[in-house]
Amino acid sequence: MLFDWYEGIKLQNPFYFLGIDGGGSKCKARLEDAQGNLLAESVAGPANPARDMQVALASIQQVSEQVMTSANLPVSALSNTYVGMGLAGLNLPMYKSKLQAWQHPFAQLSLSTDLYIACLGAHNCDSGAIVIVGTGSAGLACHQGQQYEYGGHGFLLGDKGSGAWIGLQTLRWALESFDGMAQSSPFIEAVFEFAQCSDAAQIIESYLTSSSAKFANLAPLVFEYANRHDPVATDIIKDGASYLSALTRKLQSHSPQRIAFIGGLAPSVIPWLDEDIQIGIKQPLAAPECGAIMMAKKQFESANKHS
Amino acid sequence: MLFDWYEGIKLQNPFYFLGIDGGGSKCKARLEDAQGNLLAESVAGPANPARDMQVALASIQQVSEQVMTSANLPVSALSNTYVGMGLAGLNLPMYKSKLQAWQHPFAQLSLSTDLYIACLGAHNCDSGAIVIVGTGSAGLACHQGQQYEYGGHGFLLGDKGSGAWIGLQTLRWALESFDGMAQSSPFIEAVFEFAQCSDAAQIIESYLTSSSAKFANLAPLVFEYANRHDPVATDIIKDGASYLSALTRKLQSHSPQRIAFIGGLAPSVIPWLDEDIQIGIKQPLAAPECGAIMMAKKQFESANKHS
Repeated sequence: MLFDWYEGIKLQNPFYFLGIDGGGSKCKARLEDAQGNLLAESVAGPANPARDMQVALASIQQVSEQVMTSANLPVSALSNTYVGMGLAGLNLPMYKSKLQAWQHPFAQLSLSTDLYIACLGAHNCDSGAIVIVGTGSAGLACHQGQQYEYGGHGFLLGDKGSGAWIGLQTLRWALESFDGMAQSSPFIEAVFEFAQCSDAAQIIESYLTSSSAKFANLAPLVFEYANRHDPVATDIIKDGASYLSALTRKLQSHSPQRIAFIGGLAPSVIPWLDEDIQIGIKQPLAAPECGAIMMAKKQFESANKHS
Repeated sequence: MLFDWYEGIKLQNPFYFLGIDGGGSKCKARLEDAQGNLLAESVAGPANPARDMQVALASIQQVSEQVMTSANLPVSALSNTYVGMGLAGLNLPMYKSKLQAWQHPFAQLSLSTDLYIACLGAHNCDSGAIVIVGTGSAGLACHQGQQYEYGGHGFLLGDKGSGAWIGLQTLRWALESFDGMAQSSPFIEAVFEFAQCSDAAQIIESYLTSSSAKFANLAPLVFEYANRHDPVATDIIKDGASYLSALTRKLQSHSPQRIAFIGGLAPSVIPWLDEDIQIGIKQPLAAPECGAIMMAKKQFESANKHS
């Protein structure tokens, strides 16, 4: 095949669309042909430029090469590939401009945040709102070409209600409780057992320089105890959920057509939100990688509409 | 002089006592001769082994050599020097055992925590209690040979009421308030101005990977606004002070003869403690470096009492 077609546009070579969703624990890639057929999917390591730019670029390179190989295509076909990429941390101008300066191997690279591609995917269009609640937490409303972002301040400075935040609150409480300076609960034994620690010093040594993902690993245990009415676990989950309800109200104020919750903790946290918020939540229609492909196609069409 | 005396003990060479107090922002050294005369003092970089072991050892080496030079002594005289050292992070067994394995250049090295030497110095004996409140926070009571430690869980996991904690709470609030999701206050403008930032993204970029010391730099501003009755700054300071009052009550439960507050934020925070706690606080009698020398002398006496 010496040429290819895309919605009436004739091109000299076969070409592809690649969507990449990059976050703090992994990045996912989805490869489609010009007709929108799924060719392959792939997963590689973390791609949050604000945490580690070199690691992020290496993960992006790796997942791009992997997905071509999975589709039985040569890696050189990346130069005929139109890429949409949404990465955590790209809300920070410093990291966005670093990534824009990257000498990428693609035919075209369209960049945005993980939030934006998730919103595109969840609603199959650029109008709607999402709350992501996994290792981190954040909200985005897209309406009439404008983006309104809330939260997403990162593990240390925000991300309230997220898995990492829940894990951090739990360990802070466990250490205070171990000192006899906070409410006790049978939950503390489960926390020490989960962390495989027998005293406060071991907890501190184990979590002193840990990633947010390690803190987030504690979250399912906290939900389990909250669902069993443990008072401490319940307080932590209620405090986080109350923030996420308020975040959703902020998004509602921009009148989005639909609101979706995505991320690994969404199913656990939704029952803890204010009832009127729960009722308004819609299922996401497609994955963030699909939203990334939508973004790539939009830029492709805009670049080729006069050709 | 071919020999030296220490309280009736005859030694073959002149010898010295060196006290070192190591923390997250700097380490301080005090050199005395066998008769207890001050020969020199010196300061070098951070020495918290839990944060960076290599940096800590380099700072300790540097401050030890500096203080000998200041006293017009050759660096080789360190081999006739009996050293007491209290370091932040040595409450964690992992770091204590690493430091015990260090091939130090001294005649003898006696190791403990920064808390313990501060307590020895503050009361001129090993019975009493202290609260340290500077970049971090922690409490220790020493009574009848036992040590009872509270708090000191580090910037991420605890250190409530400390300068770094106050700075972190302030920035978390400022970012939520910027999102329209927390109480507003004129204080927010002062925070953004202090941080030299004009929006949330700049705050996050500036503090994403910052040291606890950079967060602690905000604390004086928060006290200033709390003293002017700003409601947000007042809430943060009251929350921290309430923890420090509770910490002091824990120490009181061990019946210490005296309780002292030390650290850079002690004078600012004391007026915010519960009144009955304020009344019981005594002035520290000597600096932590002096406590470190007391510890070195005790080990020296114990090693030489049968010679």
